[in-house]
Amino acid sequence: MALIDNGLEILCPEQCWDRLRRSSVGRVAVTIGALPAIFPVNFTVVGGQILFLTGEGTKLRAALDRTVVAFQVDDFDEATASGWSVMAVGLAEEVATPGELDGLQPLVLRPFAGGDRSHVVKITPEFVSGRRIA
Amino acid sequence: MALIDNGLEILCPEQCWDRLRRSSVGRVAVTIGALPAIFPVNFTVVGGQILFLTGEGTKLRAALDRTVVAFQVDDFDEATASGWSVMAVGLAEEVATPGELDGLQPLVLRPFAGGDRSHVVKITPEFVSGRRIA
Repeated sequence: MALIDNGLEILCPEQCWDRLRRSSVGRVAVTIGALPAIFPVNFTVVGGQILFLTGEGTKLRAALDRTVVAFQVDDFDEATASGWSVMAVGLAEEVATPGELDGLQPLVLRPFAGGDRSHVVKITPEFVSGRRIA
Repeated sequence: MALIDNGLEILCPEQCWDRLRRSSVGRVAVTIGALPAIFPVNFTVVGGQILFLTGEGTKLRAALDRTVVAFQVDDFDEATASGWSVMAVGLAEEVATPGELDGLQPLVLRPFAGGDRSHVVKITPEFVSGRRIA
């Protein structure tokens, strides 16, 4: 039987990771100059880590420098008032060592947007949580 | 001519508000116990304010107590690698006075999820910003 939290079905970690792996666009919450901000990114999951690209000199890149961030994916359908949401919280840091970069090269990490996005950021989730409209 | 920021077209405030008004699900970024968190909510825009419901005793309700939050909506299409994102940053507070609540009663504020969601929260954006994949 599924656990219910205020009308929402709680997803187990396995269900959360499954949804993270099947999503391609997520959102990162960071703090910039004491103000909260949310950035959409397209991403991929590799070995329990969330990977995405940022550009040189962007606000997002600066904000992600070894900070704990929230990362979120969801999918809602207005017509049926249904959907789900998954959040992962963990340390964000740039992938800096050549060894790590080599391992990531075969991965599909194509940002939707053009422009310079050559810095690989990884988030290592400490926990994941998810809810589904029951 | 549209302004371009690292491959993304910058949306003007009017375009941002237009997209906010046409969206029904957004995400709020808050800090809970020193950790960032992102919650999806369904919402409505009335007179330059973003309104949504929370439940009694929820983490989200506590985190929204007169705090500056980021609110975000987006729409991306994986097949065409296109989409846009809009963010509004401002003070969140509960709508507490009977006069204010009366004015909101005719509004459509139906949360997708069941459960107790009887507290109206309003965000008064100090600024909005948006990007579109050019």
